[in-house]
Amino acid sequence: MDNKLNKIILAQLNPISGNVEYNKNKAISAINKAIEKNAEMIIFPELFLLGYPIGDILTRYPYIAGQCERALEEIKEVSKNIAVLIGYPEKNTSKIGKPFFNSVMLIKNQKTEKIFRKALLANYSEHNDYRYFEPAKITKENRIFELGGTKYGVIICEDGWNDKDFFEKNLYEIDPVETVAPEVDVLLCPAASCSRAKKEQLKHNMMSFVSKKYKTKYIYVNQTGANDELVYDGTSRMYDENGKLIAMAKSFEEELFELNLNGENVINPLIKGLELTLNSQKEFSLDHEPDLERTYTAIKTAISDYFSKNGFKRAVLGLSGGLDSTVCAVLLADALGNKNVLGISMPSSLTSKESKSDAEQLASNLGINFMTVPIKDSVELLKNKYENIFSNVESHWDKRYKNSFTIDNIQARARSMILWSVANEFAGTLPIATSDKSELYMGYATINGDMSGGYAPIADVVKTKLFALARWMNKNRSNKNAIPESIILKPPTAELAIDSNTGKTLLAEDALMPYEFLDEVIWRIENLNQSINDMMKAEFLYEKKKNTDIETKRNWLNKFFKRLNTALYKWYIVPPSPVIDARSINKTEFKQPIISNIDYLR
Amino acid sequence: MDNKLNKIILAQLNPISGNVEYNKNKAISAINKAIEKNAEMIIFPELFLLGYPIGDILTRYPYIAGQCERALEEIKEVSKNIAVLIGYPEKNTSKIGKPFFNSVMLIKNQKTEKIFRKALLANYSEHNDYRYFEPAKITKENRIFELGGTKYGVIICEDGWNDKDFFEKNLYEIDPVETVAPEVDVLLCPAASCSRAKKEQLKHNMMSFVSKKYKTKYIYVNQTGANDELVYDGTSRMYDENGKLIAMAKSFEEELFELNLNGENVINPLIKGLELTLNSQKEFSLDHEPDLERTYTAIKTAISDYFSKNGFKRAVLGLSGGLDSTVCAVLLADALGNKNVLGISMPSSLTSKESKSDAEQLASNLGINFMTVPIKDSVELLKNKYENIFSNVESHWDKRYKNSFTIDNIQARARSMILWSVANEFAGTLPIATSDKSELYMGYATINGDMSGGYAPIADVVKTKLFALARWMNKNRSNKNAIPESIILKPPTAELAIDSNTGKTLLAEDALMPYEFLDEVIWRIENLNQSINDMMKAEFLYEKKKNTDIETKRNWLNKFFKRLNTALYKWYIVPPSPVIDARSINKTEFKQPIISNIDYLR
Repeated sequence: MDNKLNKIILAQLNPISGNVEYNKNKAISAINKAIEKNAEMIIFPELFLLGYPIGDILTRYPYIAGQCERALEEIKEVSKNIAVLIGYPEKNTSKIGKPFFNSVMLIKNQKTEKIFRKALLANYSEHNDYRYFEPAKITKENRIFELGGTKYGVIICEDGWNDKDFFEKNLYEIDPVETVAPEVDVLLCPAASCSRAKKEQLKHNMMSFVSKKYKTKYIYVNQTGANDELVYDGTSRMYDENGKLIAMAKSFEEELFELNLNGENVINPLIKGLELTLNSQKEFSLDHEPDLERTYTAIKTAISDYFSKNGFKRAVLGLSGGLDSTVCAVLLADALGNKNVLGISMPSSLTSKESKSDAEQLASNLGINFMTVPIKDSVELLKNKYENIFSNVESHWDKRYKNSFTIDNIQARARSMILWSVANEFAGTLPIATSDKSELYMGYATINGDMSGGYAPIADVVKTKLFALARWMNKNRSNKNAIPESIILKPPTAELAIDSNTGKTLLAEDALMPYEFLDEVIWRIENLNQSINDMMKAEFLYEKKKNTDIETKRNWLNKFFKRLNTALYKWYIVPPSPVIDARSINKTEFKQPIISNIDYLR
Repeated sequence: MDNKLNKIILAQLNPISGNVEYNKNKAISAINKAIEKNAEMIIFPELFLLGYPIGDILTRYPYIAGQCERALEEIKEVSKNIAVLIGYPEKNTSKIGKPFFNSVMLIKNQKTEKIFRKALLANYSEHNDYRYFEPAKITKENRIFELGGTKYGVIICEDGWNDKDFFEKNLYEIDPVETVAPEVDVLLCPAASCSRAKKEQLKHNMMSFVSKKYKTKYIYVNQTGANDELVYDGTSRMYDENGKLIAMAKSFEEELFELNLNGENVINPLIKGLELTLNSQKEFSLDHEPDLERTYTAIKTAISDYFSKNGFKRAVLGLSGGLDSTVCAVLLADALGNKNVLGISMPSSLTSKESKSDAEQLASNLGINFMTVPIKDSVELLKNKYENIFSNVESHWDKRYKNSFTIDNIQARARSMILWSVANEFAGTLPIATSDKSELYMGYATINGDMSGGYAPIADVVKTKLFALARWMNKNRSNKNAIPESIILKPPTAELAIDSNTGKTLLAEDALMPYEFLDEVIWRIENLNQSINDMMKAEFLYEKKKNTDIETKRNWLNKFFKRLNTALYKWYIVPPSPVIDARSINKTEFKQPIISNIDYLR
């Protein structure tokens, strides 16, 4: 065996959270292929046998750790002539501490050679490691091994994120890299790092900085694919001793990436968006273009994995002829195949002719299944029936609204009932929730209506970005211009009510505020943690473009936070949706008590 | 001022999470009353200015910590001639660590005398402290103060839960009590500890053990009232140097409890259920009686606070004549007042005459508002309309179910739409989700149907306990026997489908399995973390009562876990509900990835 090149396989794979059998089989198949390729070592992502995110699987079903132990035995069995580095939950047998360690086992000669335990446990955003794992102590010895004349040091994901020279602020006192790196030739980092807007550049800069600082190679192996709401972007890689990126696997794809530690390597290009600079985080921009390929790919991956891993294959959604359902339809068609998507136009008396024809045209362009089911009659019927109910209730209760949203909501709910019924009637079918992030922040979505579904593909994408995404898809999909231009050009409306000022359908921006302003408020909350006072002092992009008096601005901001307070319940019951932005309102990462009547103004 | 008795006020109050202004005003009013009573000191619960649970309020809106700082200044202003011990989030100004400390400020002579920082950060069940707070280091000095000749040591909630002699297994290496207790006369523990089945006895035993071990008094001040899903039970108290309970505030109620450190004190009796022994945790029992008063009080408190804190006052629910909606109606009437509750009977063609009359009788006994809205016509209409849709879909898609649940669900959704419409039409009104815990585990609930609502009062109560609760309420409410006996006697049915075997309405236990068996499976998962194999080896109570062959048992277990896997999505979108059991499936504390296709059998 010629190991001069120290061939290493980075097993950039897509596990299912909690399905040890599935993940083990994937591991064994990868090891067999690595052996065929005569590799010296194969490295799996962090906690691979369990798959991230792990939720409370380990604490609720602790016997799953036993499943992992048995899986490791099977893996040792097949690991002939190859070193295997694989992540798993290790029971903590001590009387002190959390029940598990987040560990990586080094298998050599079909035996346990060494076990490395994670020290720094991420517990922010989507991360919950400290909930389950005991932080391990770091020594020079307990993170180092030798193979083929090379000295390796193992750092596990968050272990690598605490360099005191790189970060202005550090979350932890200790830095495992500081202890390990001076002793080794190569740092090995098994990770499970999900894709977020503008995270890649930080990651790249840090790894490059660390490998240069310590004059070591740096190998990073990341999970890929999506589980529920988190999409892992892969892009496993290596840096040389000068911090130069010299090898990179693909983005968002499974790959057994072949790495020659001392030879030539492949550098796959990053998907556009992954490379965004950190500077762009510091200022709001309406130019969403740089992040669109990543956004498209992440959502497509999320849909595809959510359906297949849950045993679904078909989606049904309402096609209103508006932007949200349109973008969802394109993403679904690309993720599931157009014949697995059914778009239903469900016009009410408020639906314009254009909406109907736009929806039909879109479906025809995409080649998805399409039908029209008018809801005018049933809404009319319910309206009358409900009027009787309300009159009766009025005999008991006061405070009936003069202008309620009841009829608006009945329309949205009647539509959703059709979608759920189709899903109930046909195997493997999920209805889709089409709510977007701007409107969820405002609670501008109907419970059991448009915000109801088995999955919500665009719940973490703001409206201005959806417009950009629609244009991007028209340009970059092989089937060009599938989205009719009129859908992108017309101002958004839910078509659920009449504007008493204009006598026409109420436009969303009139019910809320201009989306360009709204989306910047969201950005300022999520990226700068600003209060209303901070925002009053800041100049919005919208203000630069259009003269906005101070009273209007204050009214919009007050309206925003007032609506946000009442939208919290809707966030609580919104279906799962892929996390896309740097920060989001997805339940996976953000928790705010519903009763928190925060005084945002002070 | 005569301080020989060292009069101390335990401010057992009910804050709103995140509403600093509200909590500050409550604090100031309490301080003023304590001054009037000539108290030497007033002690507030943990993190009182923010209120538990805090969710991600601090990290998303960090300026709230500034609101707390300003509130503290106002509090100092009024704190004349009294020492104040109050919890708040303190900014961590160091370059290392999490952004805040979980701190308690001692105010003396209207100035900051000392700040105490929490060391042990709970990060399990509903607790998330390590997500936001930096663990503080413990020294003898930084937790001690003197007042009126007495030496006090401050331990903050979880700080007190790591005694190495009391617990068999410890979560943390350090024990703050070990450092502090030998130096002081009194241990002071501000806490935010929510009510869970069988937690009180553990708490009592531990505090009693610790005060005896170190020969100190032990004062515990707990939050009360509910925020979203968590109900805090108050029961602030003191133990003497021999571990004897010598003072106790009320359960689940606000109280400025007057404590005489060296004199006579009041011991309020615990609400029944709070005193349950730990032994009862180790074996499943169908005798729910010992926990019913606590369950009733906790849910009533949860409903009342959820409504009032969110600005709602009225509830509308479907009254099916079945157990779930019946128990909900009683709890709502007691929490909100009977005139603020509207029960609607919505019979379909499957609804029995008894169901209708039972519902009406219940409403009349409770004195709640009642009306009947038959849904037979609209379901018939939708059924026909949908049949056309399905025929059309069939031209595109295969795999239409022969026996679908579509019509069952349409009935449940038509009902829910009525409830939401009433809530949309009348101010301050919330619809109620009536799903129970047994059925949620099985996914036996309709999305946008019976599991939809603004709040889900009994989602953490299993069916056998609901039967017991119904009997308990009939006996213990001042209005006796409000629940018609026939509701408690008849076997549960959703009345949504016909059983093809009997030709009668499908009974829930036939669709699922006997509730007595089902509830024990849940108990074994939540309390013993058992797998199917463990359960096959164990003898269920049901087996002792009724001969059950091994195949039937295995089938039930397989069915249970298969249904559980597909129920995970429903758990994700179930409305907020009070946490009642020792462990639950509430989102606040339990997270399981939806895609986790766990092999429970291995």
